[in-house]
Amino acid sequence: MRMYDIIMKKRNGEELTTQEINFFVEGYTKGEIPDYQVSALMMAIYFQKMNKRETADLTKAMVDSGEIIDLSAIEGIKVDKHSTGGVGDTTTLILGPIVAAAGVPVAKMSGRGLGHTGGTIDKLESFDGFSVEMPIEKFMQNVNEKKIAIGGQTANLAPADKKLYALRDVTATVDNMSLIAGSIMSKKIASGADAIVLDVKTGSGAFMKDENSSFELAQEMVDIGTHVGRNTVGVITDMDQPLGFAVGNALEVKEAIDTLRGEGPADLTELCLTLGSHMLVLGEKAKNAEEAREILEDIIKSGKGIAKLKELVEAQGGNPTYVDDTSLFPIPSIVEPVVAAEDGYVKGIKADDIGIAALVLGAGRETKESDIDLAVGIVLHKKIGDFVKKGETIATIYANDAKKQKTSEEMIIKAYDIVEEEIKAKPLIKGIVTKDGITKF
Amino acid sequence: MRMYDIIMKKRNGEELTTQEINFFVEGYTKGEIPDYQVSALMMAIYFQKMNKRETADLTKAMVDSGEIIDLSAIEGIKVDKHSTGGVGDTTTLILGPIVAAAGVPVAKMSGRGLGHTGGTIDKLESFDGFSVEMPIEKFMQNVNEKKIAIGGQTANLAPADKKLYALRDVTATVDNMSLIAGSIMSKKIASGADAIVLDVKTGSGAFMKDENSSFELAQEMVDIGTHVGRNTVGVITDMDQPLGFAVGNALEVKEAIDTLRGEGPADLTELCLTLGSHMLVLGEKAKNAEEAREILEDIIKSGKGIAKLKELVEAQGGNPTYVDDTSLFPIPSIVEPVVAAEDGYVKGIKADDIGIAALVLGAGRETKESDIDLAVGIVLHKKIGDFVKKGETIATIYANDAKKQKTSEEMIIKAYDIVEEEIKAKPLIKGIVTKDGITKF
Repeated sequence: MRMYDIIMKKRNGEELTTQEINFFVEGYTKGEIPDYQVSALMMAIYFQKMNKRETADLTKAMVDSGEIIDLSAIEGIKVDKHSTGGVGDTTTLILGPIVAAAGVPVAKMSGRGLGHTGGTIDKLESFDGFSVEMPIEKFMQNVNEKKIAIGGQTANLAPADKKLYALRDVTATVDNMSLIAGSIMSKKIASGADAIVLDVKTGSGAFMKDENSSFELAQEMVDIGTHVGRNTVGVITDMDQPLGFAVGNALEVKEAIDTLRGEGPADLTELCLTLGSHMLVLGEKAKNAEEAREILEDIIKSGKGIAKLKELVEAQGGNPTYVDDTSLFPIPSIVEPVVAAEDGYVKGIKADDIGIAALVLGAGRETKESDIDLAVGIVLHKKIGDFVKKGETIATIYANDAKKQKTSEEMIIKAYDIVEEEIKAKPLIKGIVTKDGITKF
Repeated sequence: MRMYDIIMKKRNGEELTTQEINFFVEGYTKGEIPDYQVSALMMAIYFQKMNKRETADLTKAMVDSGEIIDLSAIEGIKVDKHSTGGVGDTTTLILGPIVAAAGVPVAKMSGRGLGHTGGTIDKLESFDGFSVEMPIEKFMQNVNEKKIAIGGQTANLAPADKKLYALRDVTATVDNMSLIAGSIMSKKIASGADAIVLDVKTGSGAFMKDENSSFELAQEMVDIGTHVGRNTVGVITDMDQPLGFAVGNALEVKEAIDTLRGEGPADLTELCLTLGSHMLVLGEKAKNAEEAREILEDIIKSGKGIAKLKELVEAQGGNPTYVDDTSLFPIPSIVEPVVAAEDGYVKGIKADDIGIAALVLGAGRETKESDIDLAVGIVLHKKIGDFVKKGETIATIYANDAKKQKTSEEMIIKAYDIVEEEIKAKPLIKGIVTKDGITKF
């Protein structure tokens, strides 16, 4: 078998066999096939596409290129959740406790990641003493006993995907549905999930700006899941503005606590209930999404959700009293309002720009080595459809540096699109994709 | 300027600017742009094509990537000829002398090359003592005085093309008209030609198997020539069978001598008269192709052509008496016929397979280091349309190794397609492409 023939075949629009896909993924991972042949193949795939079988084969080959986490010591159906980017996304901190409280095992291996704010681990470290360092046996034991544990991601998952993504990123071959879907799914499958709920963001703040593309991506991922025997559901959700109000680390944790108490932002609450419902159904803790939603609403109302968060924090060495007294979280030296320059309705809030305004404050990492400031960030007070008066506070900046606060303020003002005519808020959940088909709302 | 954006632009079907094309060709030649980005761009070009302006810009950028031979010390219009591959192509040895005899300066820099037989230099070295080693001043002086000199190619011509071609060759991005045309034309332009006649082969033994593609390639090259101010004519010629009868080094030289005496194979003679006519017109030694053809026919008839070959050989240290006594050329130990296994008409002769049968005998180089056996080769006696009787000689093998002769014999028999029904020979010249348009015959 020769890589040349594989490139030629795909270039000519033919279907690659399982053997051919395995050959190139293995050869590339081992360094036996050079970058320049693989980038040519990626460009050929960009133009000629891959069918469902090829996409599933590519995903499997990437899974097999590295370690596969064995979660078989955990009882029950392990349901994982993945969000495709976005700004102000605190869902894991809310979903984890409520889903665990409903009996679905949450065995989350998280990274720190690069982004506008830190990853789930960074956020949880806002609780003094919280740690993800523990032996794998302890991790498994925690999940079995408490239904939830958050570990650090140290395994070498899907290295072929890492290498391929880095190459695609510099050769203008990222935006192909099969390749994007395969990249996301390979990591989820290698993480040991039995079933997967995907939160596919759509809109100006998402990787997929266009709604149809988001449905298409969800469909690709659901198809891969079906092909490899992982029950997968995709929920298409709006990211035309940041999710919730808070963008930052401690700020998002406080928002998660509010939400677990039933006092969170409407959009964040709605998203968690929707994603959580599907997780419960896949985890066989509810017959359908409606029943699951009632269970989750009850978990929040009864205080079982917030209790589960405390249990998690305590089990991993964190101080659970922070949950009841959020004034204990890191607080910055500067808290300043951002005020509206004119009357009008909020038509849009550029999520990416709000994210960068938070990054500027120090909420996220620009490079792997950067330190994160857990205290800083932004809290929005106005969202799409809201009316604002000139001089009214539209957001609050939490900063530790006056110059950065000023830069961030200018960015936030620019991110808000305020217009004269009345604007209606758009629904958050755009549709659901399952192996049985697409439902659009 | 970033290579990433250039790839993205072409991938999206946009036109690249002159600056962008120069940026990537210069950067790639200097090693500043990696192979994996260039191969992705080549694949994007394969799918999205380049327009005439982009193709001309790419060609110019490749010319500028290395040395450009300055032939300005030579008087008159330097007309170069290029054939796109093929088997048994001895045209340079015939065209050089007749065109020089008509007053068009022939300043040929040749290589040794890899192929079924040696290059022009190898073939000329069949004349005992012939050498291409001479100072550039002597080379120029010879062309000015005798209108012809053959030098060795030592300049670093179009290194960007060399590097790009090597990359395209392993990434399935060779067959794009703009890239093929640019590759050929960049070397011709860097060689210092004022005008160019292209012999574009078509058919089973050519790189372009299909006649329409051959016309398209000729058109692309004529367009490049026009764009860069080099008058260019493309002649589309049949390569459904080897050209002439001889395939080998000394054997092809003897055939060239026969042709210069007016006793050569009809197809080879016709091709030389056609290509030569266009060279004379471009070199302003004739008003039109018809007048040029009469001049060349007269040169052959009067013996001026064969005299010019002798003059060339003598001027470069070779023994010119070989021209009158061809028994002086190297002769192999084995001369064996290949006989027909059945009665019938020759429908086809796979040119590539005949080429390989000659290579097996030792007529060509398999690697740069291989030695060439000047004596060996094949002479065909039957061509398309000829009737053969069972047991009749269809070809003669000239060999120095009985085992190789046997292998070669089997290949020749297989290369001949002999059928019952009568077959008509097809015309050699399929058409002409000039800057004024296409003429098909």
